[in-house]
Amino acid sequence: MRLFDGGRAPNPRRTRIFLAEKGIDVPLEPVDMAGLGHREEPVASRNPLKRLPVLELDDGTILTESIAICRYFEALHPEPPLFGQSPLEIARVEMWNRRLELGLFNAVASAFRHTHPAMAEWEVPQIAAWGEANRPKALAFLEFFDEHLATSRFAAGDTFSVADITGLVAVDFMKPAKIAMPDGLSHLGRWYEEVAARPSAKA
Amino acid sequence: MRLFDGGRAPNPRRTRIFLAEKGIDVPLEPVDMAGLGHREEPVASRNPLKRLPVLELDDGTILTESIAICRYFEALHPEPPLFGQSPLEIARVEMWNRRLELGLFNAVASAFRHTHPAMAEWEVPQIAAWGEANRPKALAFLEFFDEHLATSRFAAGDTFSVADITGLVAVDFMKPAKIAMPDGLSHLGRWYEEVAARPSAKA
Repeated sequence: MRLFDGGRAPNPRRTRIFLAEKGIDVPLEPVDMAGLGHREEPVASRNPLKRLPVLELDDGTILTESIAICRYFEALHPEPPLFGQSPLEIARVEMWNRRLELGLFNAVASAFRHTHPAMAEWEVPQIAAWGEANRPKALAFLEFFDEHLATSRFAAGDTFSVADITGLVAVDFMKPAKIAMPDGLSHLGRWYEEVAARPSAKA
Repeated sequence: MRLFDGGRAPNPRRTRIFLAEKGIDVPLEPVDMAGLGHREEPVASRNPLKRLPVLELDDGTILTESIAICRYFEALHPEPPLFGQSPLEIARVEMWNRRLELGLFNAVASAFRHTHPAMAEWEVPQIAAWGEANRPKALAFLEFFDEHLATSRFAAGDTFSVADITGLVAVDFMKPAKIAMPDGLSHLGRWYEEVAARPSAKA
C-alpha cells in the first residue's frame, strides 16, 4: 500500500492528519505539486482527474478523494471513531464536515486558486472576481461557526472528528489565500488552539 | 419527524430519491424556494445557512445537508445499503459520490446559479464568467464518467448507490443550466436510462 501525497496542499493534508489521528502508518510517495507533478506519471494514469491524494492498495486498486480514503481506513480501523458511531453522530459529523467544506474549505480554496498568480496554470480560466467573491463568503461562515462553537467543544459535538480536520486545514489555508482571521471570534480561537495543538496537526 | 423540502431544487431531490429507494416515508413540509421561502421561517431559524433540505426529528433535533440526512437514514435502516458495506465498497461509493459532486453536480449548479437571470437574487454576486467556465468543466467530466461506465454498471460498481442518485440529479439539472448532453456518450446514455427508469427517480 502507498499514498501519493501532495505536501502542503489542503486535501492531502486532511488525509495525513486523519491517518495520524488513527495511528496508521502508510508509506508516502511525495509528488511535487508545485512542479505540477500531479499531472504526470505516476499520478495521471492512477487518477485521470489528476488530483491528490491517491491511495494504491497492494493489489493495484486505486482510491481517490481525501474523504473516501479516510472512510476506507475508518472502516478497517474503527478506533478512534472519526466519522461518528450512533446514527445521530454519523449524521452530525457528515453535516459539519460538509458545512465546513462548502462554507469554508471550498471558499478559501477558490479564493486561493482564482487570485494567486502561481495558480494561473492550475485554474483555467482563473477568474479573479470569483476568487474575490469567496473571501466574504469565508468570513461570513467563520462568524456562523464561531457562534456554533460557543456551545460545542468540537465541530460536531463533544468528540473530535473528521469535521475538525476539515476546519483546521481550511483555517490554516486562509494564510496563502490572503484571508485574515477576523478579530473577536473567541470561540473559534478557543477551538483552533485546541485542534492545532494536537500532534496530528503537524502531519 | 418532518422534512422541509425544496421541490425541484437538486439537493432536496437527492434526499427524496434516497428515501424512496429505502422505502422510508417521511412527512414533507413543502417550502416555496422560488419565492425565497427558504430564507424565512420556518427554515431560517432551523438552518441559519438558509438551505434545504432540513430534517426535524420529533425531539426538535435538526439535521441539514442532503447527504448527512441520507446517512442518518442509512444508519437507522441499513437495507438496501446505498453507501456500500465492505471497506472498499464504502470508499468507492464515497469516491464516486464526491467525484460526481465536484465534477458534475457543483459544476452544473454553478452554471445555473451564475448565469440564470432568476438566480440574481440567490447568488450574490452573480459572476457570469464563472458560470460559463463551469459548462466545459461539466462536459469534460461527462466524458470521463462515460469512459468509467464502459466497465461499470453503476457509478460505484455493480450496485446502485447514492453516487448514482447524485449523478442522476446532476444530469437532470443540466437542462435548466442550459448544458446540452453531448452526442456519442453511449455508456452514459445506457446508465442514465437505467437509473432514470427506477421508480425513485420520480420522487
